[in-house]
Amino acid sequence: MCRVYYTPLPRGGKVLTVDTMNANVKKVDYAVRGPIVQRAVQIEKELKEGVKKPFEEVIKANIGDAHAMGQRPITFFRQVMALCTYPQLLDDNKFPEDAKNRARRILQSCGGNSIGAYTTSQGIECVRHDVANYIQRRDGGIPSDPDNIYLTTGASDGIVTILKLLTAGEGRTRTGVMISIPQYPLYSASIAELGAVQVNYYLNEEKCWSLDISELQRSLQAAREHCNPRVLCIINPGNPTGQVQSRQCIEDVIQFAAKENLFLMADEVYQDNVYAEGCEFHSFKKVLFEMGPEYSSKVELVSFHSTSKCYMGECGFRGGYMEVINMDPEVKAQLTKLVSVRLCPPAPGQALMDLVVNSPKPGEPSYQTFMMERTAILSALAEKAKLTEEILNTVPGIRCNPVQGAMYSFPCITLPERAINEAKAKGQAPDMFYCMKLLEETGICLVPGSGFGQREGTYHFRMTILPPTDKLKILLNKLKEFHQKFTQQYS
Amino acid sequence: MCRVYYTPLPRGGKVLTVDTMNANVKKVDYAVRGPIVQRAVQIEKELKEGVKKPFEEVIKANIGDAHAMGQRPITFFRQVMALCTYPQLLDDNKFPEDAKNRARRILQSCGGNSIGAYTTSQGIECVRHDVANYIQRRDGGIPSDPDNIYLTTGASDGIVTILKLLTAGEGRTRTGVMISIPQYPLYSASIAELGAVQVNYYLNEEKCWSLDISELQRSLQAAREHCNPRVLCIINPGNPTGQVQSRQCIEDVIQFAAKENLFLMADEVYQDNVYAEGCEFHSFKKVLFEMGPEYSSKVELVSFHSTSKCYMGECGFRGGYMEVINMDPEVKAQLTKLVSVRLCPPAPGQALMDLVVNSPKPGEPSYQTFMMERTAILSALAEKAKLTEEILNTVPGIRCNPVQGAMYSFPCITLPERAINEAKAKGQAPDMFYCMKLLEETGICLVPGSGFGQREGTYHFRMTILPPTDKLKILLNKLKEFHQKFTQQYS
Repeated sequence: MCRVYYTPLPRGGKVLTVDTMNANVKKVDYAVRGPIVQRAVQIEKELKEGVKKPFEEVIKANIGDAHAMGQRPITFFRQVMALCTYPQLLDDNKFPEDAKNRARRILQSCGGNSIGAYTTSQGIECVRHDVANYIQRRDGGIPSDPDNIYLTTGASDGIVTILKLLTAGEGRTRTGVMISIPQYPLYSASIAELGAVQVNYYLNEEKCWSLDISELQRSLQAAREHCNPRVLCIINPGNPTGQVQSRQCIEDVIQFAAKENLFLMADEVYQDNVYAEGCEFHSFKKVLFEMGPEYSSKVELVSFHSTSKCYMGECGFRGGYMEVINMDPEVKAQLTKLVSVRLCPPAPGQALMDLVVNSPKPGEPSYQTFMMERTAILSALAEKAKLTEEILNTVPGIRCNPVQGAMYSFPCITLPERAINEAKAKGQAPDMFYCMKLLEETGICLVPGSGFGQREGTYHFRMTILPPTDKLKILLNKLKEFHQKFTQQYS
Repeated sequence: MCRVYYTPLPRGGKVLTVDTMNANVKKVDYAVRGPIVQRAVQIEKELKEGVKKPFEEVIKANIGDAHAMGQRPITFFRQVMALCTYPQLLDDNKFPEDAKNRARRILQSCGGNSIGAYTTSQGIECVRHDVANYIQRRDGGIPSDPDNIYLTTGASDGIVTILKLLTAGEGRTRTGVMISIPQYPLYSASIAELGAVQVNYYLNEEKCWSLDISELQRSLQAAREHCNPRVLCIINPGNPTGQVQSRQCIEDVIQFAAKENLFLMADEVYQDNVYAEGCEFHSFKKVLFEMGPEYSSKVELVSFHSTSKCYMGECGFRGGYMEVINMDPEVKAQLTKLVSVRLCPPAPGQALMDLVVNSPKPGEPSYQTFMMERTAILSALAEKAKLTEEILNTVPGIRCNPVQGAMYSFPCITLPERAINEAKAKGQAPDMFYCMKLLEETGICLVPGSGFGQREGTYHFRMTILPPTDKLKILLNKLKEFHQKFTQQYS
């Protein structure tokens, strides 16, 4: 027997160590749940145990988790989900007829009429039909094919799956993935895990985080020196930056992708979260098809949606879908095969996705309540978006772009030289140093800009606009106070 | 600008084609949802459209999906899930107090008391505590640490995550993963996707699919010639083979793993599915700890469980957990980071997992009904396991080992030379040819043995024992008739 290629373990050592594990996994970073959040959880425990702090509770403005911030679920959605879960309730008068009809329809599409059965891997057929109808309505009649819809475990799952298909080549032919900076760190994390090449293009902070084609061009050219950039990822409305892209900008991006042979991935999970006047959500699909057959028959596009954001905020259910457009049929077969290995996305998440795309219609018994709840949530978010921008911009040393959409502000903060040096001496990013101090002194949990990427020498944080209005006001004023104190202390 | 490393697309071509996609994904195969199942779905559609067939319905005995085969969900589980989903029902007298208490406790551990909030990435803390308590009870008091529990999106998710951590090296140092043949194709599919090396060890069909250490040794030695085998995967009770490992066998495997420095992965999702007299489920964890500190302080083990099998069969919820034992703390930190990128497993699946490990206790109002339902399901499965073995063994040319556990029989079938040749001429595996013919002529959907792996020159199929007893009898008799006809036709 030849053992020459086999390195035996040191006696008593581990088979799996950081030195012998998957090197790509080690490169993964995910700031939204990073050290600052771990510390926040610890502080919460300390508070429970009676440890004295200069605050009474931790306010988690680090993650887009609406329910955790007190937002109530949409009644209709939860009624249907309860009916699907425990069909004995279908005989209960307390539930409105439209909720029962939705539940019956979903259950009829489930194996053995149970939401506990596996679904087909691509997702329950009637849900995919409803998704396609929704997209068609949303996009002014542009057709959508249920065969192009894949239900997913949240949008994250779909994004990683598509990136996985696209990752190929070695060294200088390795797939490059263009992502905006600042970005949502799911992208950088997945790119690292897959061993693809991250290609950064910078959003223009001076112009309200807009996307310049010249910057895309610069980024692409630079990347072509060392990898094979094949994918362009867009998040619209933006995370963490909260901008909403104009129709013109989307058209320019599509033109650019067509010219440069780039596969487009459009992360549109915040499609209902548009607040600023004059702003409107335009789907990439719609713009693509309005540009005529030269584009609509050619550009490969996948767009993503989810149950986690917008007015529903049902993150825990891990529901989502993607629509694939102009995908090579052989690749599509490979995609269908790949998703079958995980059997199916969670059935409750699929059912919930169905309700989002097939919400109560005028005339149905639940319509009024549904609309009232939906409008209340979205109006409150719009108000909080404005409030956040306004209060933050009263603080010297903080500059905040309008929160046009999504759920976040990403203000630029000026940090004193001495604070920057102290952070660096500690081996910390200066904005991590700042956010950690903020957490310890006020209980406010934000994510440092360095977790999303930012231009060298600039500092930011991401803050959600989700806390209830009163709490948000307190948070913003505490933040203001902290920033002033911090600036003084290190000046 | 230097474009020398960039291959431009042919005009009008696709960015993503089978030639330019991830090569590992192309190698993935998943028979349980392969071509035979796609054909079954097609046939179902044809039947609905009125196409005449020699049968009235497709019977899907291809996948371990209990609810789809008519098994009713456990009442208590669904009551609690409905209460968690729509907490207004907590005021409803129709729900028993123990169900309400469970729901309240779960909701209190959720952000904003909503199952729609993200949970921590490792899983809801009280659920992880309940899982640890369950393991401790199951294993006769051997301690389990909630910090070692990770909730997952079904067991599949956990298995892929651990394999991902373990995959490293290049060429002859590439991680080898030892899997049984026959195997559950999630393993081969994930190994292919990750680009690890599949290392086969054969189960002994003559000895009721038992595991011989000498075969492990043979397989390991052969593999060390071309890769670095670091992981040994065991499925107990077995899928697709239905055997239950003896305590002695498990001890031998652990000893082997310790001696040969292998990381152990124990897929124990069928832990409640043990039917044969004299057979008992022994967890790898328990045996490991009973072997004394020399082993229990050293051998790295991860074991997996799920809400999808046993008596609950709640596949659609995608609930599961894994317990990691003796994992290097730095690697564990990497694992925690890695799972955080996907945010969290579905919260409803986590809640359901909680109910499985914290089911009604004697004295609680739901206890009797729960036990009645549970026992009825498990007894029926035991009866069907026996029935399947008995009837199949009456067919000349079919030889079926006892279905000691899990949900499957994996009989060996003798195929006439002429059938084998005809299949090969068509480029089909002979047992695929057989199963496809069976489907077209009888509506019975099985998975060919070639999808799981088998010794060269032998042929099998996997059949679940899940259809209701009457239907199972019909199925088995149809199968008998078909096999006889098939043998005649090709002799």
